[in-house]
Amino acid sequence: MNYSDTDLAADDLHTVELHSSLSDPALSSMNFLNEVSNRFPDAISFAAGRPSEKFFEVDSVHRYLDLFCQYLRDDLGYDEEQVRRTLFQYGRTKGVITELIAQSLAIDERIEVDPESIVVTVGCQEALYLCLRALRADDRDVVLAVFPAYVGLIGAARLVDMTVLPVREGPGGVDLDDLVSVVRKARASGLRPRAFYLVPDFSNPSGTTLSTDDRHTLLHIAAEHQLLLLEDNPYGLFHEQGDRQPTLKSLDRGRRVVYLGSFAKTGMPGVRVGYAVADQTVVDHRGGRALFADELSKIKSMLTVNTSPLAQAVAGGKLLEHGCSLVRANVREAENYRDNRRRVLDGLAKRFPDSRIESPGVSWNTPSGGFFVVVTVPFQVDDDLLEYSARQYGVLWTPMCHFYDGEGGRNQLRLACSFLAPELIESGLDRLAALIADRREREAPGGNGAETV
Amino acid sequence: MNYSDTDLAADDLHTVELHSSLSDPALSSMNFLNEVSNRFPDAISFAAGRPSEKFFEVDSVHRYLDLFCQYLRDDLGYDEEQVRRTLFQYGRTKGVITELIAQSLAIDERIEVDPESIVVTVGCQEALYLCLRALRADDRDVVLAVFPAYVGLIGAARLVDMTVLPVREGPGGVDLDDLVSVVRKARASGLRPRAFYLVPDFSNPSGTTLSTDDRHTLLHIAAEHQLLLLEDNPYGLFHEQGDRQPTLKSLDRGRRVVYLGSFAKTGMPGVRVGYAVADQTVVDHRGGRALFADELSKIKSMLTVNTSPLAQAVAGGKLLEHGCSLVRANVREAENYRDNRRRVLDGLAKRFPDSRIESPGVSWNTPSGGFFVVVTVPFQVDDDLLEYSARQYGVLWTPMCHFYDGEGGRNQLRLACSFLAPELIESGLDRLAALIADRREREAPGGNGAETV
Repeated sequence: MNYSDTDLAADDLHTVELHSSLSDPALSSMNFLNEVSNRFPDAISFAAGRPSEKFFEVDSVHRYLDLFCQYLRDDLGYDEEQVRRTLFQYGRTKGVITELIAQSLAIDERIEVDPESIVVTVGCQEALYLCLRALRADDRDVVLAVFPAYVGLIGAARLVDMTVLPVREGPGGVDLDDLVSVVRKARASGLRPRAFYLVPDFSNPSGTTLSTDDRHTLLHIAAEHQLLLLEDNPYGLFHEQGDRQPTLKSLDRGRRVVYLGSFAKTGMPGVRVGYAVADQTVVDHRGGRALFADELSKIKSMLTVNTSPLAQAVAGGKLLEHGCSLVRANVREAENYRDNRRRVLDGLAKRFPDSRIESPGVSWNTPSGGFFVVVTVPFQVDDDLLEYSARQYGVLWTPMCHFYDGEGGRNQLRLACSFLAPELIESGLDRLAALIADRREREAPGGNGAETV
Repeated sequence: MNYSDTDLAADDLHTVELHSSLSDPALSSMNFLNEVSNRFPDAISFAAGRPSEKFFEVDSVHRYLDLFCQYLRDDLGYDEEQVRRTLFQYGRTKGVITELIAQSLAIDERIEVDPESIVVTVGCQEALYLCLRALRADDRDVVLAVFPAYVGLIGAARLVDMTVLPVREGPGGVDLDDLVSVVRKARASGLRPRAFYLVPDFSNPSGTTLSTDDRHTLLHIAAEHQLLLLEDNPYGLFHEQGDRQPTLKSLDRGRRVVYLGSFAKTGMPGVRVGYAVADQTVVDHRGGRALFADELSKIKSMLTVNTSPLAQAVAGGKLLEHGCSLVRANVREAENYRDNRRRVLDGLAKRFPDSRIESPGVSWNTPSGGFFVVVTVPFQVDDDLLEYSARQYGVLWTPMCHFYDGEGGRNQLRLACSFLAPELIESGLDRLAALIADRREREAPGGNGAETV
């Protein structure tokens, strides 16, 4: 064969020839928000829903690792070779801490499950992906979600070319009548609604929570309409004292709930350990039966092979240090998030004392837990305004339109209360109030509403 | 709403309504092989391509973590808050050890790349998935691979519904004429061959290696036919002394190679840290330009968010301990694998002294590196025979048919030389020789060839 040197010139790739998800706003929104944060490092950020860093210590990693090794030796009777093999080798795809997770679910959530129905994943995001990948057989298969929705749900659906049908949010979390109506309409038009994704406790972004009654009704709807429920529960432990609902999974008698768990907020994001509880039965064409967890595990074996056993050991060590209770492990953390949330809510009330008279059009919700508060304002909220806010006022937040997949949330912004120290919350709210005054003035009759931000 | 108690009965899921990958033999083969290993724990296993465990120590994890923290402080000037944030928080999607990886690629492989073109992934398997997900825009897009092929390539392709077109293996690794012919035929039938996946050094399963000349020719073919090359290189460091070829990426002047790296064999599988070097330019419809690495990172943000920074810290610490050289970090390991491979090859020669006369039909290849040797035998090799071998002779290996996506390899088996201690290699080969004698006797004229195994 004969080749000239011009052959060596590089070919570019073109977005139009790459997977459609790469042209989708859902996949760019995370990047855009990070990029704004990076460009304005000195801005006070209510943007990222990160856990507080004040309780992180490097020493804890060493301690957790040692505790987990001790558990392998003492509780499981492993010799040193087995300990090393568990930490260092490829491990079982479903994970090496499924027993510990099952114990913590029993203690903290009254969820009783066989550890075999648990798949440990690279964060809850991988668990979500595995479920959608498994359930999306062809283009009739759709997933439902309350809108506004967690960006990661929309993004994971894009990766498997699965349509997300929006269900209306009600004041109590989900508009259940709308859910039934969306399912019926979808079926009537030939679609197969496979699952309904929701965060029943202190949802991201809205902070809403389903009542216990609504949880029972939802389980009945799932039964009647043969719908799996994907229950994502990262924030459930961070509630006002005494104000806690049972998880859907703990009420689930018909194995209709896949429970998606995360250590990111209750352990630490840096382990990237989450899991799915998938105790559904899957029947193959020969009548063979398997756990849905085993099917998810087959997909995982071709995606990430397994979740780092070293990272699992750190998460497992944290569980062991607290008797397998994340409630116990998070006493200080829960108090911190409660204080922060109250400070944000009180701070908003102080700065917008009577929203009907002095601050027309400014309002906010009052979640009883979780990381987020949503503020409604009487002007358009978008990425341009975020950029203006960062540059002119040094404060970052998240435009709610990012959680609507392109339609809605145009006059709302999300404040994450989790990460900031008290004094920064106060300064941040001052800056936000200044931004709101600025925008109101411009948009008022006689103000210079036409200026671009 | 009114519901009866019968609503609560569980619905089963059905494989036919789940994604087709879950009915695919490619995704079950890994499970089947693991399951056989679990059922015969006392069998000597040439099956799994695992690294040797003899150099693993729990203490090294503590040391690597501390070294990485020291590096953050001393080399990057981080304060304690930044150190904690790096280890514990969500981090950049592309990873926190891209600089260290770039250094190691320069030192060990003479690959010079901007760290910005590196995406750290959850093992090399995630990197492979990200590439295929990005490149599969619609059902015309196909990926090519030398057959027999790594099961993980076939599995990842199944997850994105991408067809894998087989290219013939030649004695020097790839039959390059067949490659060109497969590309031409695919294009003529309306398909778009997007990439060619290969393991140029000591491939899995065949142990073949491309000559330097063939590497140059392959790069020219890639240029002429506008084909990306996906170079997977887990075994390159484990060669006979002096017998090393330059990586394709180090010869790549046209940014046609995406380099897929793994720490599983050179670091430890338990970190689940791999990476992609993707320095290609991607042009969007408005003429905007981005690195292919950034597009892969967008997909990753919706799949696993980021690779555990704690796991990256352990991998990073190992790099730092050895001056960013995995060659230096693996001196003992490389020697161990060399010794094991020679022991397997010598052991086969001793047990089948003249394969043409005394052992008709028994032959094997003689790879000059890597983990694997392929043995050809004069009878059918399949999962039933593996089970028989485990039960009757206490020896495990991998039927080569698993690497052919259903067609081929019916009289070959793969031996992994990496994992076993010398004395177990000898006993294992004795057992294998006994199995081969057994099968030959049964299949010889007059033998009882009809008996099922």
